[in-house]
Amino acid sequence: MLAEIIAIGDELTSGQRLDTNSQWLSRELGLLGIPVGYHTTACDTLAAGVHAFRIAARRAQVVIATGGLGPTADDLTRDVLSELTGQRLVLSQQALEVIASRFSSRHAVMPESNRRQALFPEDGSLIENPDGTAPGIKMVLSASDGWGDGEGAVIYTLPGVPAEMRRMWEETVSGELKQVAGKNRVLRHRRLKCFGAGESAIEEMLPGLIERGRDPTVGITAHEATITLRISAWADNDDSCREKITTTEDIIRKTLGHLVYGEEDEEVEDA
Amino acid sequence: MLAEIIAIGDELTSGQRLDTNSQWLSRELGLLGIPVGYHTTACDTLAAGVHAFRIAARRAQVVIATGGLGPTADDLTRDVLSELTGQRLVLSQQALEVIASRFSSRHAVMPESNRRQALFPEDGSLIENPDGTAPGIKMVLSASDGWGDGEGAVIYTLPGVPAEMRRMWEETVSGELKQVAGKNRVLRHRRLKCFGAGESAIEEMLPGLIERGRDPTVGITAHEATITLRISAWADNDDSCREKITTTEDIIRKTLGHLVYGEEDEEVEDA
Repeated sequence: MLAEIIAIGDELTSGQRLDTNSQWLSRELGLLGIPVGYHTTACDTLAAGVHAFRIAARRAQVVIATGGLGPTADDLTRDVLSELTGQRLVLSQQALEVIASRFSSRHAVMPESNRRQALFPEDGSLIENPDGTAPGIKMVLSASDGWGDGEGAVIYTLPGVPAEMRRMWEETVSGELKQVAGKNRVLRHRRLKCFGAGESAIEEMLPGLIERGRDPTVGITAHEATITLRISAWADNDDSCREKITTTEDIIRKTLGHLVYGEEDEEVEDA
Repeated sequence: MLAEIIAIGDELTSGQRLDTNSQWLSRELGLLGIPVGYHTTACDTLAAGVHAFRIAARRAQVVIATGGLGPTADDLTRDVLSELTGQRLVLSQQALEVIASRFSSRHAVMPESNRRQALFPEDGSLIENPDGTAPGIKMVLSASDGWGDGEGAVIYTLPGVPAEMRRMWEETVSGELKQVAGKNRVLRHRRLKCFGAGESAIEEMLPGLIERGRDPTVGITAHEATITLRISAWADNDDSCREKITTTEDIIRKTLGHLVYGEEDEEVEDA
């Protein structure tokens, strides 16, 4: 099972705003044991949105998208889903009531354009947004329709506002995906910081360790004079992950000795 | 002409590191007058890299990629380009001499694995990297080979280390693309911050302003109680951009009055 994250908005593709949602979601998916293969950011056109979702839903089985669910004309995610699936948009009374109640609880009149946020593709279902007027949309694309490399794909579209997105993830999406991920595998990382030898010299000292397909994998990156070795392990639980990581860490430390000057675990909270 | 930016690395798709290169490059491309349609981030497998580049080079005419050019086994960008184009990798004596000179100037012995960084697809050309051992690779894919929506595509691959990437952009890539962009159009943004009305209420007060295809475009985003209107204008020069922006800004200010409480220009340096 592979996940892809889509971020939507001209403010992202033009570089005006930095996308932090995709990083956050990637870590969360890792904690659920679902590896992320790609992130895609698409500008605010119908064509770009449809292209991004079509590709994602064919190469990944889980697609999480953020942005484009607002009430205004540049918010196209629901139109993109409609175009993607060939399903027309229909008004959800359930969604409309939720949206209207958000306004009435603030003693405000709901603008007509907020009705747009209650439009869903025929098979789309609502993801509750306790903090905002934009409900998320979930769609399941079945493999029999040619989606998802023969495995089908599930799409979750969430608002771009980080606080709303995170709460919806925590209260709805992550629980559902935990079921799907099933085996409840987790991903843990440890980083070893090295100084005093170049990237390629360090790799030569650790033959075979930086091969793809090794378990755990070891990645290597250079930043100025610091070389970082990143050990990443998948396992059924935290302890097994840490055990795998420690075995590989020992090999590295024995070989590199004083070249290793520091370490850090991943900076994510545990799920 | 449309650009796409690719960032490569498991440390990005797993969420361990935040990609800031794509944002930086997007702003730079905007200043050159080249709009960015997509960002893609791909994990460190040959298949993912090839998929990302194939899609990018078909839907964009300019592809800028960062990462994956180091000397170690998890750096696959040159293999990805070889697989993508069907061209075998050949040793560039020119590149090898440059890399070797980096080591000899530091009185260091070049590890054998750094020879990998001198491997280029047959038609790839070298982009000089004054600050590191990883030269960039430029490849031109011609439309006659079915690339780039009938317009062909040019690919620039740069290192992921921000300082190296930025210097290579400034000294080589941006100058070349300025020629290609030709018309030397520039993109400028202004953001108006509003408070006291919701996103949809503000859109209703500004009919037609937030339509796609308008010139300049106006985007609208909500973050907590603040609504941001983002005016973006393309023109031949800064002054024309600002003139266009000001005309639209006046309409907004006249209509929204005291709801607008602040403004800011884009936070990028001018090219």
